[in-house]
Amino acid sequence: MTKSCLVVGGAGFIGSHLCDHLIDHDCQVHCLDNLHLGTKENIRHLLDHNHFAFHHVDACDEDALDRIFSTHHIDTVFHMAANSDIQKGAENIAIDLELTFNTTIHLLNVMKHHHVPEIIFASSSAIYGQSDDPLSESSAPNFPQSFYGAAKLASEAFISAFCDQYPLRAWMVRFPNVIGERLTHGVIFDFIKKLKSSPNELVILGNGKQKKPYIYVKDLIDGIMTFYNNARTNRAVINIGVDTQTTVDEIADMVIQEMGLEDVKKTYTGGAQGWVGDVPEFQYDLTHIHALGWRALKRSSEAVRHTIQAELKNSHA
Amino acid sequence: MTKSCLVVGGAGFIGSHLCDHLIDHDCQVHCLDNLHLGTKENIRHLLDHNHFAFHHVDACDEDALDRIFSTHHIDTVFHMAANSDIQKGAENIAIDLELTFNTTIHLLNVMKHHHVPEIIFASSSAIYGQSDDPLSESSAPNFPQSFYGAAKLASEAFISAFCDQYPLRAWMVRFPNVIGERLTHGVIFDFIKKLKSSPNELVILGNGKQKKPYIYVKDLIDGIMTFYNNARTNRAVINIGVDTQTTVDEIADMVIQEMGLEDVKKTYTGGAQGWVGDVPEFQYDLTHIHALGWRALKRSSEAVRHTIQAELKNSHA
Repeated sequence: MTKSCLVVGGAGFIGSHLCDHLIDHDCQVHCLDNLHLGTKENIRHLLDHNHFAFHHVDACDEDALDRIFSTHHIDTVFHMAANSDIQKGAENIAIDLELTFNTTIHLLNVMKHHHVPEIIFASSSAIYGQSDDPLSESSAPNFPQSFYGAAKLASEAFISAFCDQYPLRAWMVRFPNVIGERLTHGVIFDFIKKLKSSPNELVILGNGKQKKPYIYVKDLIDGIMTFYNNARTNRAVINIGVDTQTTVDEIADMVIQEMGLEDVKKTYTGGAQGWVGDVPEFQYDLTHIHALGWRALKRSSEAVRHTIQAELKNSHA
Repeated sequence: MTKSCLVVGGAGFIGSHLCDHLIDHDCQVHCLDNLHLGTKENIRHLLDHNHFAFHHVDACDEDALDRIFSTHHIDTVFHMAANSDIQKGAENIAIDLELTFNTTIHLLNVMKHHHVPEIIFASSSAIYGQSDDPLSESSAPNFPQSFYGAAKLASEAFISAFCDQYPLRAWMVRFPNVIGERLTHGVIFDFIKKLKSSPNELVILGNGKQKKPYIYVKDLIDGIMTFYNNARTNRAVINIGVDTQTTVDEIADMVIQEMGLEDVKKTYTGGAQGWVGDVPEFQYDLTHIHALGWRALKRSSEAVRHTIQAELKNSHA
């Protein structure tokens, strides 16, 4: 029997790649999005597919959610909806409270009502906060530095509590920085935008030494599905990432090179953090996901270069 | 100079004992409570004190909070407001979302606006969920089983993020079961109530083998202040507890004995959990708080017996 999946935030950057994967694997896909951050463009190629249905619905609208669960049988919910612009969320707590946390609560309320048995949740490395050691799933205490990270940890907490309220199984996947086609913001996007408008200078937030693992979105999706297909507890959490890192300075140089620019003057706003709530350096302990036989195919810097090329090609198209 | 403290939830069970302690230690105390769970009775003895002021305000009312912070200089906020009835919270997620989580968010918003530099937060063992090992502060993953535990972990997460938004220092104290004078619910309270109405039988939720550490409220307050006066980081978390435990069956027997009853037929609803979200057994690793030179004076069963006697005396008065 065909598995029926609801992808919440399915027209967003990561959500739309997940829809692609699920369609390729013969699932019935219900894509739900309010199109605030997601776009029809991201899923246009899927709209005519027999197994794909788009629902223009806000995940905080419990009545609308209720109508979807009443009308369609759903086996599995993938909750990918969130404020994906962490930096913007730092300016106003209401953004992450509403888009990153309340979406989770409303979704869980309606899932419980309809006894939907499975949720896969897009969590984040931002829940851990700064650490000098590689972050394993058992790293604690959890001291998130951004409202985004706080809202993701708060969501994990309530998903866990719902697992005791009815027979819900939960897979919580902590993403690192995710990049690739359809990316809408972040450092790569910013640098390209800045250099298009001023090709001779590039202002870099912080000291340029921020160093993070960047995972290619298709690798991430493959990791999520490996975890989902193999984890055997009713409530599981995992780090998915790539065991290499790229600095902000290296990203700047790659963008400059791929754009064919020369004599670009790089200046730095200074300080270890790019912005309030930024975690300037982290790395995951990936023992658990590697033990499931999965590894990212692209290294961090390969993912960065691929994304720069895709973005430049897309903006020239 | 006299230190000025705001105790949010200061007319509640634990909050009112904290007010007592702060007044005894020459602080200016602003007690804030909406009196939904707290009572004037708990603080009546303080109302005429020169250094005590009561504010009948809901912690979710940002305008009212703003007026207090505008009118009074506050050095330190003790956030004790929460839904204290975990079992009741399991029936309706809105209770803990509003009373345990949103109180934290609104308070932090207004504290940030007024640059209040310190918060001491009443967190809970419920954030950890079930574990076979003693829970240390670095125990993870955090899988809370109740909405109360989820709301406490969510609160910790946002307090942590606010520490990066402005120079806020936070002490987060994870309480075990707390008992003593002015207790308003929980197993001791339930057993006394049940036996007063039916002195020949006692229905016990679960199998009676639930086994937890019960701390005496005055010991807890002393532990909180030891932690506050000694922790030197800007964001710290600690377990405060007692290294002994009491079973539900032992509590039942003590209540029966202290009430002078005989031939009480105990029956059990069965199952390891007393109710949905209950963590039937846990113990803390107390290495960190003990290293600060603090230990609870009353053992768990001494605290239980003392509380039964205080409650019986109070209800006869």
